[in-house]
Amino acid sequence: MSGPPTSADTGRGRFITLEGGEGTGKSTQQGRLAAWLRDQGLTVVETREPGGSPGAEQIRDLLVTGEAGRWDAMTETLLHFAARRDHFVRTIQPALAAGTWVVSDRFADSTLAYQGFGHGLGRAPVEALYRLVLDDFTPDLTLILDLPAQAGLDRARQRIGDSGAAEDRYESMDESFHERLYEGFRDIARREPGRCRLIDASGSEDAVAAAIRNAVADRFQDLSP
Amino acid sequence: MSGPPTSADTGRGRFITLEGGEGTGKSTQQGRLAAWLRDQGLTVVETREPGGSPGAEQIRDLLVTGEAGRWDAMTETLLHFAARRDHFVRTIQPALAAGTWVVSDRFADSTLAYQGFGHGLGRAPVEALYRLVLDDFTPDLTLILDLPAQAGLDRARQRIGDSGAAEDRYESMDESFHERLYEGFRDIARREPGRCRLIDASGSEDAVAAAIRNAVADRFQDLSP
Repeated sequence: MSGPPTSADTGRGRFITLEGGEGTGKSTQQGRLAAWLRDQGLTVVETREPGGSPGAEQIRDLLVTGEAGRWDAMTETLLHFAARRDHFVRTIQPALAAGTWVVSDRFADSTLAYQGFGHGLGRAPVEALYRLVLDDFTPDLTLILDLPAQAGLDRARQRIGDSGAAEDRYESMDESFHERLYEGFRDIARREPGRCRLIDASGSEDAVAAAIRNAVADRFQDLSP
Repeated sequence: MSGPPTSADTGRGRFITLEGGEGTGKSTQQGRLAAWLRDQGLTVVETREPGGSPGAEQIRDLLVTGEAGRWDAMTETLLHFAARRDHFVRTIQPALAAGTWVVSDRFADSTLAYQGFGHGLGRAPVEALYRLVLDDFTPDLTLILDLPAQAGLDRARQRIGDSGAAEDRYESMDESFHERLYEGFRDIARREPGRCRLIDASGSEDAVAAAIRNAVADRFQDLSP
């Protein structure tokens, strides 16, 4: 049998992450992808970072409340990995072992992009922490929603204006920060073409959802039409 | 001039940590040591871990509340290092730069003893995190209060009985855990004889305070009688 291993091969679920900057549509596309996977007969858990387990959600509160600059980039990175470890141990790992597919709105690539590239901590400490905390575990597929920084910011600010959302720490950063994020995510996609697919997020919601379904079906052969 | 550098040489404050298992008298001895250092004309900050800065105290709340086993050993270690990084950046480093002496009730050796030895995470991940987070910063002197596990536990349980203290997560662990702590702290003292002094904590409060003053005066030559 050719192609990468699938859930049919092993009985283990698959771990798909959605990544990208502000306003790229991750949450919306997560819901659409999960619904489509369920239509294929799979059991799916939708989760997010920071958060995704009761303990990790409490750590999230420390990360998303209070003034910007409250933590330095290293402290913020450590808090993200503490939350991620709890998310992994309590939610992701048990679900995968039970054969459930897990779709997460953000995972470790966001820490590399936001703290490593955006805040200038660099690639090395984030990668060192990853290996220490998660060893050789990686997502089976990472969908990086690709949208120029200014277009994503415009969308995100529109959304905040609509909802009065309080979690706007990153939307308020200067535009060079968002440029570094955008380039950071592209760099991640370039370095790990086996795991990552860059998805053009500039089209309609339907067009992006279709591109995502194609990427998923291509990666997991038993989901091909 | 011989001997290790002192505050008189550099204008920089000195960082002294108190370590040891439950019931070894760290808090009491911290107060006595700080008072004595002030009597020598020094400016002293007393601090503690986990905690010691507003952000780190919030992380402490996640560590000391909720049921035991709420976090796995790796998550707990990451939370300790997140708190430690904030403590270092916001409290310790600015104080030392201003010429203030800092005396902390616990520091990184406690993470090595409790999570590394006690919970079995091992030495390597704790040391790797230390280098990542603090680089080559170390305490100028670490006083390890040495008391057999059972004697410390008896004291700690007496104290909890007196005060109804809620922060008894470790006092409730089984005795083999406390034996591993005791051996862990001794191992740390053996491996780093330049930084660490093992202090016999089995005597009276006055006797232990005198032993600590002797160790401090021996380490920092300008405090010698």
